[in-house]
Amino acid sequence: MDCNTPTDIVFSFTGLARRGGATGPHADGWGLAFFDGPAARVFLDPQPCAHSPLAGFLREHPIKTLQAIAHIRRKTKGRVRLANTHPFARELWGRHWVFAHNGTVKGAKTLRLSGRFQPVGQTDSEHAFCWLLDRITEKHKRRPDDPDKLAKLVADSAGVIAEHGTFNFLLGDGETLYARCDTRLWHIVRRAPFGQAALKDDDVTVDFSQVTTPRDRVAIVATQPLTSNERWVRGELATMWAFHKGALRGTYKSGEPSEKARRILRREQLSAR
Amino acid sequence: MDCNTPTDIVFSFTGLARRGGATGPHADGWGLAFFDGPAARVFLDPQPCAHSPLAGFLREHPIKTLQAIAHIRRKTKGRVRLANTHPFARELWGRHWVFAHNGTVKGAKTLRLSGRFQPVGQTDSEHAFCWLLDRITEKHKRRPDDPDKLAKLVADSAGVIAEHGTFNFLLGDGETLYARCDTRLWHIVRRAPFGQAALKDDDVTVDFSQVTTPRDRVAIVATQPLTSNERWVRGELATMWAFHKGALRGTYKSGEPSEKARRILRREQLSAR
Repeated sequence: MDCNTPTDIVFSFTGLARRGGATGPHADGWGLAFFDGPAARVFLDPQPCAHSPLAGFLREHPIKTLQAIAHIRRKTKGRVRLANTHPFARELWGRHWVFAHNGTVKGAKTLRLSGRFQPVGQTDSEHAFCWLLDRITEKHKRRPDDPDKLAKLVADSAGVIAEHGTFNFLLGDGETLYARCDTRLWHIVRRAPFGQAALKDDDVTVDFSQVTTPRDRVAIVATQPLTSNERWVRGELATMWAFHKGALRGTYKSGEPSEKARRILRREQLSAR
Repeated sequence: MDCNTPTDIVFSFTGLARRGGATGPHADGWGLAFFDGPAARVFLDPQPCAHSPLAGFLREHPIKTLQAIAHIRRKTKGRVRLANTHPFARELWGRHWVFAHNGTVKGAKTLRLSGRFQPVGQTDSEHAFCWLLDRITEKHKRRPDDPDKLAKLVADSAGVIAEHGTFNFLLGDGETLYARCDTRLWHIVRRAPFGQAALKDDDVTVDFSQVTTPRDRVAIVATQPLTSNERWVRGELATMWAFHKGALRGTYKSGEPSEKARRILRREQLSAR
């Protein structure tokens, strides 16, 4: 979620949480990061989100934020433990950077790390995140003034990692939310006139017009649409979105679509006919 | 807290939390970090600990750990916000390092940072932490095999920072807990035969013999003793303790005692007569 006004993520998180062991199989831990300016606080729990007391607590005590990144894990590499739980966080240029990955990029472990950012756990995801930060700092000692330049670098670097598997991700620094579509990613930007939205995974409906002002803008990105009655935008294969203050600031080419991504897309297009 | 067996920190945290706005004035936010192997999860809350729903949640849902670092803040520099809330965390050598400071080292902001570790907030504490990590990485590209060598480096570097004010701190990487006494620090190592302990700040007593095995060992370090009926050990001025698996592994000289520390000690000795 990326917004232009402090917003709580309870509605979307309620739908996502159900997929963590109830309506979906992603039961190997979960995490939720909230930015407050340049700082993020990350809540992590290596147990199924659908039944986690901490997840319940966060639904009952909403935290307003301009940017939040949530992840529910279905493990492929790395056992269920705290060190392997997304999202991962590092400090760069005096801000936290938060990263959550959907997919597997096993071979990315062959990408050499400088040592400045080192994985704490065993996942290929965290290795890829460290390499991405290495690439960024290699090109820029300081944050570049041009956000477009930085977004292009993130997208290009992510394209290199994506050669090693499936690399859908969310990456945020509290300012910009980068979201790369490898096989599957959707977004929606909610703005005035606000309407009703109904969760796919739970019997919950919200009337956003009751809780917003006309100037509010909220972008939500997810692997699958979270609501059943809104129009979500599908990401194109091997592209990356950059959101800022709840708006899509740009779409960037990011490597080449993988054979797997093309296959999934063809299958989905066939079954949709 | 540093232990040789997974232990929950609920008893000590209950006492500490009371000082965060109830029995003590440290009401400007709090944090609690739990290690699980090389990874830490850090719960942060920029509101008074004594009245924080999140603190209540953590007391009701104990997390067992070998090392935990808690902090309640009374702000001197940097306003009340997430980015200024201790403990601070960074990754170094593939482990999280967690840092909490008691005191003020304003002038430490003149210590130049390399840029590898940069403060996210405005506190002198986080600046000092970043400089400490800079010093460590400057001397060692990799974690030195000799823990004593590393502890000496931490103690010496901390001594340099301490020239700029008051530098009591806890620093942990999940393996070793470093605790520097500038003006005031106490510790206790609980081991068999275990007895009863009564909190100073709350009407809570625990009988550790009921919840431990004879091999358990738990070290607790705090600015002031947390219990009224146990024998705590006072830190000597300008020294640093290193704990490992619940035992004191060593005591290190760390710079020179400040005039302020000597003054406080003299005053306390006088009033104790």
